[in-house]
Amino acid sequence: MHLAAFLNAGPMGTSGWRHPDADPGFLTANYYRHVAKLLEAACFDLAFIPDALSVPRSLGNSFAPAVQWGSGTPRLDPLVILGVMAGVTEHLGLAATLSTGYHEPFHLARALATFDHVTGGRAGWNIVTSFQDAEAQNFGQPTLPPREARYARAEEVVSAAAQLWDSWDDETLQQNKQTGEFGLASKVRSVDFRGDFVTTQGPLNVPRMPQGYPLLIQAGASPSGRDFAARWADVIFCSHESLASATAFYQEMKQRVTDHGRDPQQVRILPAATVVVGDSDTDAQQKHRAFAERVHPLAGLSRLAYHVNVDLTRYDLDGPLPELGEVGVQGHYDEVREFAQREKLSIRDIGRWYGARTEGNMIGSVSSVVDTMEQWLEQGAADGFMIQATHLPGAFEEFARYVVPELQRRGLHKSHYQGTTAREHFGLERPSRDAWQQRALRR
Amino acid sequence: MHLAAFLNAGPMGTSGWRHPDADPGFLTANYYRHVAKLLEAACFDLAFIPDALSVPRSLGNSFAPAVQWGSGTPRLDPLVILGVMAGVTEHLGLAATLSTGYHEPFHLARALATFDHVTGGRAGWNIVTSFQDAEAQNFGQPTLPPREARYARAEEVVSAAAQLWDSWDDETLQQNKQTGEFGLASKVRSVDFRGDFVTTQGPLNVPRMPQGYPLLIQAGASPSGRDFAARWADVIFCSHESLASATAFYQEMKQRVTDHGRDPQQVRILPAATVVVGDSDTDAQQKHRAFAERVHPLAGLSRLAYHVNVDLTRYDLDGPLPELGEVGVQGHYDEVREFAQREKLSIRDIGRWYGARTEGNMIGSVSSVVDTMEQWLEQGAADGFMIQATHLPGAFEEFARYVVPELQRRGLHKSHYQGTTAREHFGLERPSRDAWQQRALRR
Repeated sequence: MHLAAFLNAGPMGTSGWRHPDADPGFLTANYYRHVAKLLEAACFDLAFIPDALSVPRSLGNSFAPAVQWGSGTPRLDPLVILGVMAGVTEHLGLAATLSTGYHEPFHLARALATFDHVTGGRAGWNIVTSFQDAEAQNFGQPTLPPREARYARAEEVVSAAAQLWDSWDDETLQQNKQTGEFGLASKVRSVDFRGDFVTTQGPLNVPRMPQGYPLLIQAGASPSGRDFAARWADVIFCSHESLASATAFYQEMKQRVTDHGRDPQQVRILPAATVVVGDSDTDAQQKHRAFAERVHPLAGLSRLAYHVNVDLTRYDLDGPLPELGEVGVQGHYDEVREFAQREKLSIRDIGRWYGARTEGNMIGSVSSVVDTMEQWLEQGAADGFMIQATHLPGAFEEFARYVVPELQRRGLHKSHYQGTTAREHFGLERPSRDAWQQRALRR
Repeated sequence: MHLAAFLNAGPMGTSGWRHPDADPGFLTANYYRHVAKLLEAACFDLAFIPDALSVPRSLGNSFAPAVQWGSGTPRLDPLVILGVMAGVTEHLGLAATLSTGYHEPFHLARALATFDHVTGGRAGWNIVTSFQDAEAQNFGQPTLPPREARYARAEEVVSAAAQLWDSWDDETLQQNKQTGEFGLASKVRSVDFRGDFVTTQGPLNVPRMPQGYPLLIQAGASPSGRDFAARWADVIFCSHESLASATAFYQEMKQRVTDHGRDPQQVRILPAATVVVGDSDTDAQQKHRAFAERVHPLAGLSRLAYHVNVDLTRYDLDGPLPELGEVGVQGHYDEVREFAQREKLSIRDIGRWYGARTEGNMIGSVSSVVDTMEQWLEQGAADGFMIQATHLPGAFEEFARYVVPELQRRGLHKSHYQGTTAREHFGLERPSRDAWQQRALRR
């Protein structure tokens, strides 16, 4: 069983910062050092930082709701924060979200290669295409490009980055002080990638990284996203409300991976799990309810508008949610639409619900929660979980203190690290250069 | 007196890696941790990492010479390396070179703001416009843009970044758990920067950094570069072979700063100093000669071609250096041209000399070197020095072990830090928002 920790480089969730145990110090190094150390002590495979490249302007094209309620802002640079976490850990994998929409492949490939070197092979990249107009506007574009264009660019950026990582063979460096031969030029090659969106000559100016390539993570729920994940991802992150839907997704994705000529054992699927434990199931549910009650309804609406990239103040808030057409995050929209139609909710009600909504709820006593996790693993719904923090550091502290020992007691979770790289923690091979070239061609 | 340390995130100089004491571990965290700790123990104000965004293709459009001789490659991502150094230090300022040519202001502003937060105010930015065709080609451009266009873009990137840093006032965050008020939206503002090269809406998604703005460093020697530095730089880095030229530059720059309505005391000028100490002057000179002899002549030519951004294999290597027109780094070219004409050198000879050349040589016994430093300070040629390492970590170890105690004994260098931020180490005020808006307007 694999455990990843989902944490913002900023306040958690819609109002995780209001939790009595939430530490307000998310602008300081010590906040992240504490979290990193506790995750490593609990033998987590990975710390995962999501990202967004703007202060959301979700309601009335204004950033005010986000600032006022702490909904989606601030968000610090994830790679800088992971650098802080790397400094106090030796095993924990460290995955940064970097957008294919607004990063140049040379910068992105170089930063991740450097990070993998200095962490001894612990770098991961969560590949996102971004989903907000406000992000596009921070990079000189008037609106978010359509999904197909975003994935077309993602394809180019990942392919170009892969070629940059491939531009130095292992063992190029000689550093022969006697002869003066520093490196073998025959083991370095140009890239000459020419795309519709990005062009880069190469070679990269960083030698091949310890893992060969960073651990690649992807979470797209749309058909384009699923196809992309099946070809490129080492770890697929998803969100399901039921065992049935998680199992269906798991089977579909392993099949898609197989269809692309990849070994399905070499891809790990981690559904989100918001774990809240208490002395009893009732106690835990009460804790979760107390958390939900702290959410301001308009903060919830702001969060929803942000995820779907549609200004919902255009519509009557007391009326039903109309069809929105192409939205930002398809997976969240599908879930909201289904729930709202079933429950006949107004937009305002949806906002209230959405703000308090947490993904993959596992709420109960320690043994109930661990039973559920075990069931998901046994029924083929998961290879592990992406643990969501409602607040920091409390949520991870409780998980480490109460849930991890029970997982270890049942033999579901390791009590020490075997390998040293992120790929090794997930039982994944170091990919060969050929295998990667194939992924790019299978489009 | 201010001390900054100039170190590559990769092998040093043209063949610093061949030095018997050079540590080959420049791909590992421990290499940079060791250097960071020794610089902090010696009360350095700043560690400074230069950068280049390509493997140089200086001779015959080939990257082979750079790889073969370790001349200008590898170069790891400077901000990731500074993150490693930040983890083991508490005071040392940490400056990354980031190119205005190929970075988006939003990414750059955000990374530096985050770095300043997690280091408690120790971030610096060395502003460069880049100078190689190979860099342009890694970002989809066929050749290096002309200098005027590069500085026009630099102006926009710095102005946009300054406005992004200004987009959150101090004390915007409230985090009032009772009322649910996270931040004061009235203290956050849009940027709406629209330039010919870059456009960004803002606000930044990171609150105002501890220093307000990172320490800005600039080293342009061309007239455009000097004007730019006079308006924006907090620290100006330069290279002079004689006290006379250093003094002239110092006076000119302080005058330019004054002409732009800035306080000349609020700008520090640091000439490069390559310090090699020995038991006697003769012993030190012998050490430096042994260093120079390790440089392969073609590696030197490759380095020169890289700095001037001209493929010198186009010309007869046994003939004189022709006029090159607009080159990459103007300062280096001027120095080479003057020396070659005086000494009547062929291109091949120039390469041999240039490869072994170190900047601002201060070579001698400890007391000779400290005498020279003292003289430069007293004669108004410097506010301190950018110490160049011939090899790592040995060059800084020797400087810390032998030179620093003598500087301290004479009362020229501090023996403990007074402040905590990089600006405080340099005796610089935290700039007001108004002052910065003025810098942008004074163009």
